[in-house]
Amino acid sequence: MKTVISNNEQTKELVNLVLQGASEAFNTYRNIPGDRKADFLNSIAAEIELLGTSLITQAMAETHLGPERLMGERTRTCAQLRAFADMVKEGSWVEACIDGALPDRKPLPKPDMRKMFIPLGPVIVFGAANFPFAYSTAGGDTASALAAGCPVIVKAHPGHLKTSSLVAGCIQRAALKNNIPSQVFQHIEKTDFDTGQALVLHPLTEAVGFTGSFAGGYALYKMAVNRDRPIPVFAEMSSVNPVCILPEIIRKQAKGIAEKLANAVTGSMGQFCTKPGLQLLIEEEGFEDYLEALRHKFSTAQPAALLHEGIASTFYKRRNESIGTEGVKLEMSSSLKASVQEGYPSLISVSASDFIRQKTLHEEVFGPFTLIIKCRDKKELLEVIRSLHGQLTATIIGTTQELQNNRDIIDALTDKAGRIIINGVPTGLEVCPSTVHGGPFPATTDSRFTAVGISSVKRFVRPQCYQNFPSELLPNELKDENPLGIRRMVNGSWEDPGKK
Amino acid sequence: MKTVISNNEQTKELVNLVLQGASEAFNTYRNIPGDRKADFLNSIAAEIELLGTSLITQAMAETHLGPERLMGERTRTCAQLRAFADMVKEGSWVEACIDGALPDRKPLPKPDMRKMFIPLGPVIVFGAANFPFAYSTAGGDTASALAAGCPVIVKAHPGHLKTSSLVAGCIQRAALKNNIPSQVFQHIEKTDFDTGQALVLHPLTEAVGFTGSFAGGYALYKMAVNRDRPIPVFAEMSSVNPVCILPEIIRKQAKGIAEKLANAVTGSMGQFCTKPGLQLLIEEEGFEDYLEALRHKFSTAQPAALLHEGIASTFYKRRNESIGTEGVKLEMSSSLKASVQEGYPSLISVSASDFIRQKTLHEEVFGPFTLIIKCRDKKELLEVIRSLHGQLTATIIGTTQELQNNRDIIDALTDKAGRIIINGVPTGLEVCPSTVHGGPFPATTDSRFTAVGISSVKRFVRPQCYQNFPSELLPNELKDENPLGIRRMVNGSWEDPGKK
Repeated sequence: MKTVISNNEQTKELVNLVLQGASEAFNTYRNIPGDRKADFLNSIAAEIELLGTSLITQAMAETHLGPERLMGERTRTCAQLRAFADMVKEGSWVEACIDGALPDRKPLPKPDMRKMFIPLGPVIVFGAANFPFAYSTAGGDTASALAAGCPVIVKAHPGHLKTSSLVAGCIQRAALKNNIPSQVFQHIEKTDFDTGQALVLHPLTEAVGFTGSFAGGYALYKMAVNRDRPIPVFAEMSSVNPVCILPEIIRKQAKGIAEKLANAVTGSMGQFCTKPGLQLLIEEEGFEDYLEALRHKFSTAQPAALLHEGIASTFYKRRNESIGTEGVKLEMSSSLKASVQEGYPSLISVSASDFIRQKTLHEEVFGPFTLIIKCRDKKELLEVIRSLHGQLTATIIGTTQELQNNRDIIDALTDKAGRIIINGVPTGLEVCPSTVHGGPFPATTDSRFTAVGISSVKRFVRPQCYQNFPSELLPNELKDENPLGIRRMVNGSWEDPGKK
Repeated sequence: MKTVISNNEQTKELVNLVLQGASEAFNTYRNIPGDRKADFLNSIAAEIELLGTSLITQAMAETHLGPERLMGERTRTCAQLRAFADMVKEGSWVEACIDGALPDRKPLPKPDMRKMFIPLGPVIVFGAANFPFAYSTAGGDTASALAAGCPVIVKAHPGHLKTSSLVAGCIQRAALKNNIPSQVFQHIEKTDFDTGQALVLHPLTEAVGFTGSFAGGYALYKMAVNRDRPIPVFAEMSSVNPVCILPEIIRKQAKGIAEKLANAVTGSMGQFCTKPGLQLLIEEEGFEDYLEALRHKFSTAQPAALLHEGIASTFYKRRNESIGTEGVKLEMSSSLKASVQEGYPSLISVSASDFIRQKTLHEEVFGPFTLIIKCRDKKELLEVIRSLHGQLTATIIGTTQELQNNRDIIDALTDKAGRIIINGVPTGLEVCPSTVHGGPFPATTDSRFTAVGISSVKRFVRPQCYQNFPSELLPNELKDENPLGIRRMVNGSWEDPGKK
């Protein structure tokens, strides 16, 4: 008689094998020196570049994103990997801290205390539909977790499974070439819900990174925090990225600002987590000119294919729901016909009071869509800002003088978002040490961290204190002689051997 | 007709007023410069010292802790407040980071990006029964939250309500003297469960700090993460603090080690979160001598009053449950008679296999109690370590040579705890920059943070990015000219004006 194995049992067995492998690999990988981890990360970037156009062609076929956009994203992904390589090679990121013993202190002697960051353990990564490279298989979550010293398990995104497999191959080859245990990186191509759930719930899983929809991220968050042993989840989920445009600048530059904003909404069919989905204006002189200029830009905007069918159907559903909401006016849709797979650039407006009382209008509409909120005065504009959920970004556009005069608006926006932009657009995130790609819930599940930039490594590490350790048992980072030449805090003062 | 207001409605109304007050005060307090916050924190310490013996007498009456212990704790509490004062006065703790604009960069110009830590908002603090000063009203949670720029609401501990009121008065006077809005600190003397729940669930609450039992901390954690808008909770809850004693050192120093460990278990009636509740030994030559020396110490240990009735009844319940567990042997209780209010120093033993399979033995017994785990060999000892929950501390005691030869044991312990001690005891936590008082669940709800030491401020702040801000709109910490003279990362390199 043949034993019948149900799908559920198969999933459990697979996930168990995967996590046991990751856990074993962790014991080796955590102790690999920074320069070898750097070689591994640099190697991943090189392998991705080696794939050349075949990778871009595959991603184009699966995501409908254009070649320029994808090549730019590949560049960013490789730059991120190399930035983390530089970080672990240099080594100071562990924030080593040394407080020497004072054996003669009264009334009690002071023991020798030292601390540094150590990795948490196996991390599950759920990539994003809209960034097949930078927020997916070898994206920021994977790069930061590998840099931290954590094994990574990527659950491939169903929207770009083949692209994901190609990138996974790069990581696997890089591991092989650099003598890194193969199970430091594992790629799961079962994309069903149960597999994701089993990965998050497995007792050996130590953390989760997610980029995607609110529904998906929040479900994983709830699973992780309600496990017998809760684990941290960093989910970047949902943001409408309000842009507040002040009256004086609108009177002066209605057309120029309309062009910038329309491009930010419709570029890549608005499929960015930082797309400006709300625009807050006061109905004064210049407002109508601005709206008219926007209408013109939207009417001539070219529809284009969305990432995949699910994204397209959700876009139309949410767009039509918004248009059907009380008090909402459809200002303009593209005059060019769009297929059901294509984004249909759409400009909507509503009064501040109708916006404030109808919470569905506060939720993200992913795609080429933006909502103008008409405020009677500054007081109402501030009320709108205070009614908003947490955001990844908030933007304010104004003349030098009116920015000075509206610090209360800037403060109110600061409360709501992880990044505040003056006189710019939120799309086109710059990756550098000052980057914060995070923000209050529901933008992310924990505003104390960022998903982008080298400090994103903090999501996957914890401080470890070593008390009264003899030198030979300390990690190199904490030995008196500082063999790695890293910047450290020693007895309350920073010491930098000037290696960098 | 008189309106009847139920207790529940009264609670809601009170909590609503409290949080609205805190939220308003936040708008002022967050913008108060570091040196003024430092004056406030220093003032709190001075006011506490001014109370003199009246504070100690009150705390003795409520907690049954001795005067020396309480005076030591007061010293530590004031030192903590002053350490946070120094930190905010110096100012570099915000980790300011500046990446200048590159307007001519190709293909795209680089915007000016800057970041620093900003406070989260109102924090609810639940203090501990066993530390009426250092982990309560003006303890580490309050001091770090106030330093961060967050208003604090302390729910007084029912075990030392009057002590808490005295300390609250100190904070209130310090606020008044330093022109700090009074609602930056609020003291809630309703100690029922509903009030605590309403505080955690209020929409204006931004974070929670807790020190206490697993049951209490975990309940608050579950509430906070399952709110409509989840908020971070740092709960320090439960730890058995395993001590692993290797065979060679036991053969040489059985008596001396037994004395140290017995003191760590029975001092202050074992009412420390770092009390060694488990001792792991291999049954080889010397083991019996060690156990005999311990038995002697326990038989002569003096029972003394526990903190309060609830602690006493839980101690006896858990102690007797442990003794009644299969395979457990009561090695020795104090030969001196103890009243039901007093801790009864108790030494228990069990085999490794009986310990591993019975999970209730893995849970903390708060009070003068320790469990010897008898391991057949090193393999079994490692199995015991791997079976443990997360811990605040783990300790290993051995000769220089056997520590060298047992790095795998040190590694296994490192996986389990936030602080690893060699040849010492876990009690008597040193407060310095290297301190980590945290650890994997259930020791805390988030191993990425510490409850003690100046880096505990990280629990209550988030990074904020300012893009393309004109100098006059930037916080002082981020202005080019560095008016505060703080250490900053500028264009990827650390710059320290050498103020400190």
